[in-house]
Amino acid sequence: MSDTTALSAGRILDAAEEVLRRYGPAKATVLDVARALGVSHGSVYRHFASKAALREAVAERWLARVSTPLVEVATSTEPAAQRLRRWLAELSGTKRRMAREDPELFANFHQLAEVSEGVVANHLEVLAGQLSVIVADGVAAGEFTVSDPAVAGRALLQATARFHHPAHRAEWSEPGLDDDLAAVVALLIDGLRTRPTG
Amino acid sequence: MSDTTALSAGRILDAAEEVLRRYGPAKATVLDVARALGVSHGSVYRHFASKAALREAVAERWLARVSTPLVEVATSTEPAAQRLRRWLAELSGTKRRMAREDPELFANFHQLAEVSEGVVANHLEVLAGQLSVIVADGVAAGEFTVSDPAVAGRALLQATARFHHPAHRAEWSEPGLDDDLAAVVALLIDGLRTRPTG
Repeated sequence: MSDTTALSAGRILDAAEEVLRRYGPAKATVLDVARALGVSHGSVYRHFASKAALREAVAERWLARVSTPLVEVATSTEPAAQRLRRWLAELSGTKRRMAREDPELFANFHQLAEVSEGVVANHLEVLAGQLSVIVADGVAAGEFTVSDPAVAGRALLQATARFHHPAHRAEWSEPGLDDDLAAVVALLIDGLRTRPTG
Repeated sequence: MSDTTALSAGRILDAAEEVLRRYGPAKATVLDVARALGVSHGSVYRHFASKAALREAVAERWLARVSTPLVEVATSTEPAAQRLRRWLAELSGTKRRMAREDPELFANFHQLAEVSEGVVANHLEVLAGQLSVIVADGVAAGEFTVSDPAVAGRALLQATARFHHPAHRAEWSEPGLDDDLAAVVALLIDGLRTRPTG
């Protein structure tokens, strides 16, 4: 059924995701992935040098599904405050939708990401970097006054963790979550607007 | 050894904590607590109507150990911004110290609190209420301008979750955590200082 001459990294990652969904991160093996593709595990190892490398690639692709669509928001031409609101609402909305639609897969991916520390650290830097771009644009446009957009981007991401960090997923069904997010974001945007008193 | 005539709720809670430390929340029973005290489980039930009631009382007392010392900070005579900084640093510091000194007990208590939803909700309201007091004092002193100190108190607590919410305990050993907290708090305080543009 499968065409082994066309065994791409992408097809392996698709199969690995499916295996992960079925067995969970603790039990899934490279052999399971190879079996799902109808190839030898050697064929998989030609693309991914180790189980850890495959696991990291799966985590990376999953996290990119969150961060990539946000680039468009981060680089749009809207006023910076409006962009920030939309960016943070989309990040939170994407995570909450993923957690709601397939809670088990979400928990599995979260577990997988937790053991791929470098991948998560990189993901968080990408997100904070996008926020820094918005802040820097706001400074350039005279909307915001902050001395270091990189520090501000990181602070914005951390201050909104409750609304996008998977560790909080049990709280995401609480009523009033969108109001809570709006209140936090409004306070943060007011903070960016303030001239530092240093 | 034990004086059953003096079986107080406090002594039962002490014993329950010890049992919880030893067996974890899933395995600990009321009978274990009674045995540790050398009394019948009926004697325990005279103070706590059910296992759930005992569990909630343990969680409540644990959380009060975090919130009670903060009252003094919330009601001190320092300028509001300084008080906020100290209050948030103390909350984060207390949680981090607890998690570091006895990680297993901390994880057990966190698990216990999670199944005592009303207790946690009440604890969070107490904390947000203390923050609201600081914000309201800052407004009265002309330091802050916010339309609703209650909303601001809640937002301040949520925006700093990464630094005090037990779900983030795995991240608390990361280097630079105090700098991160300082950056988030500085941004939030600047937000309070801003006049709303509504």
